[in-house]
Amino acid sequence: MMGQFAIGIDGGGTSCRAAVIDHSGQVLGTGKAGAANILSDLENSLIHIVASAKQALIDAGLTPELLEELPAVIGTAGANVGNYGKKVEGALPFASTRVVTDATTALQGALGDADGVIGAFGTGSVYNARRDGRIWGIGGWGFVIGDQASGARLGRDLLERAVLAHDKVTAGSALTASIMAEYGNDPERIVEFAHASKPKDFARYAPVIFEYAGMEDAVAIDIVRTAAKSITESLDALLWPECPSICLLGGLAQAYRPWLDERHKAILAEPRGDVLRGAVELAAKLLLGGEVNRA
Amino acid sequence: MMGQFAIGIDGGGTSCRAAVIDHSGQVLGTGKAGAANILSDLENSLIHIVASAKQALIDAGLTPELLEELPAVIGTAGANVGNYGKKVEGALPFASTRVVTDATTALQGALGDADGVIGAFGTGSVYNARRDGRIWGIGGWGFVIGDQASGARLGRDLLERAVLAHDKVTAGSALTASIMAEYGNDPERIVEFAHASKPKDFARYAPVIFEYAGMEDAVAIDIVRTAAKSITESLDALLWPECPSICLLGGLAQAYRPWLDERHKAILAEPRGDVLRGAVELAAKLLLGGEVNRA
Repeated sequence: MMGQFAIGIDGGGTSCRAAVIDHSGQVLGTGKAGAANILSDLENSLIHIVASAKQALIDAGLTPELLEELPAVIGTAGANVGNYGKKVEGALPFASTRVVTDATTALQGALGDADGVIGAFGTGSVYNARRDGRIWGIGGWGFVIGDQASGARLGRDLLERAVLAHDKVTAGSALTASIMAEYGNDPERIVEFAHASKPKDFARYAPVIFEYAGMEDAVAIDIVRTAAKSITESLDALLWPECPSICLLGGLAQAYRPWLDERHKAILAEPRGDVLRGAVELAAKLLLGGEVNRA
Repeated sequence: MMGQFAIGIDGGGTSCRAAVIDHSGQVLGTGKAGAANILSDLENSLIHIVASAKQALIDAGLTPELLEELPAVIGTAGANVGNYGKKVEGALPFASTRVVTDATTALQGALGDADGVIGAFGTGSVYNARRDGRIWGIGGWGFVIGDQASGARLGRDLLERAVLAHDKVTAGSALTASIMAEYGNDPERIVEFAHASKPKDFARYAPVIFEYAGMEDAVAIDIVRTAAKSITESLDALLWPECPSICLLGGLAQAYRPWLDERHKAILAEPRGDVLRGAVELAAKLLLGGEVNRA
């Protein structure tokens, strides 16, 4: 069977998704299992990667034991940290394994083999670029001191503005009034929420911020503009003159589009596919005897 | 002995400090014990309040059992939340007890019986005002979504700016370079610190930010100006036209002075005393048969 099938896996922080492809790159079956966080929980990450692959093989009508005869490409955060990528490669049961960063699979999914820049905006925010095959990135430093354009930071900014408006320190708006009402007009309750919350809890406010910004709410516009300014600065830090395209990814990608700088809007492109698509494409390269560089 | 002595206690978040005074208001002895956080740890707060009072009595050459015959005023955060103030009053062994907020004792300490505004800048930041005997305050909502002029927020801003400069998203400076060097020029290590740190850990960077701001460091100036703007907005939210004075308190009070708005600088006054002084003054009022309102 070797040489006929390959497996591409997106080892994500909330779940692993796998796809089995044939030599033409067509997806024959897909699978899903728990999270991969190789830096913080290597053991369970390995279990979930394998489980998603086995499920994909079963979904394709193949036997799960076949994985020991197939090549696999896994994209996962942390693959470029220390020797973690190599460690994961050594511990997995595939016939041959390439572990790459999730930036590599995201770039491949969004841009194919072309050069370009991607910005991902969900609970966090991170930027990556590929130029002449070289990949690098900025941002993605997390909620506390980074991820300036993330849903989590948008939400945190909103709660801060709501409490400042409550204290009459800065001007409120319909949005801050609705947030205060949600917490019974009691700033203590907002503070309690903020101190007990994880980034994804703050990020739940992102859609309502964009909604109010679209209705000319002054505070919402201010919050979104501040985040959009950080996107402009970050894209400018990554871009080079002949960069062909920028793709926005993640749950907030569409919402941010109208707020971008005109220079960046001019080269916006739709992503061709997602991270799993990227992993699948790299797996197809591996199957066809091509090179897939680690990390 | 009743009618001769009274006890004033500053029930603070890091320690309790007590002073025994005579009928003329003179301090005869002082004592110190563990923290009072009545909202989160009522039991230990009561133990520490009593321990500090007993120590003060011993320090004054009196017997600690005397506390059951003396009036006491305790200033502590949370005294105005629900029925906590009353609960503490009921549980303490003094002959009579008044529990007031730390804002009340801080105002009394800084301003005596006069009207005015105080702003306290340490690990956190909070503002209080007294006008015709009425006390109210703003700010103090904590590190995550508040305390905009606190040492903790200054430190957090600095780490954020250092990582942004590392990514070449915004301009760096001598200060961001020195921070990056402290962490081996590895943003991962800064992020690790930020995620493991408490407000007081971030606040340790406040003095170095002011130091660099004094040396014209552009990033330091930007961080301090942002915080100073929030002080201006907060003071404006509290002030009234005939407000006689503003006192700055806390470890960063002196450092902020040159950065204040000219309108506020014009009515700056030195605080007459600290929170323990405020508790002592209120205890003296109680001893002389005056009224000390709860909270």
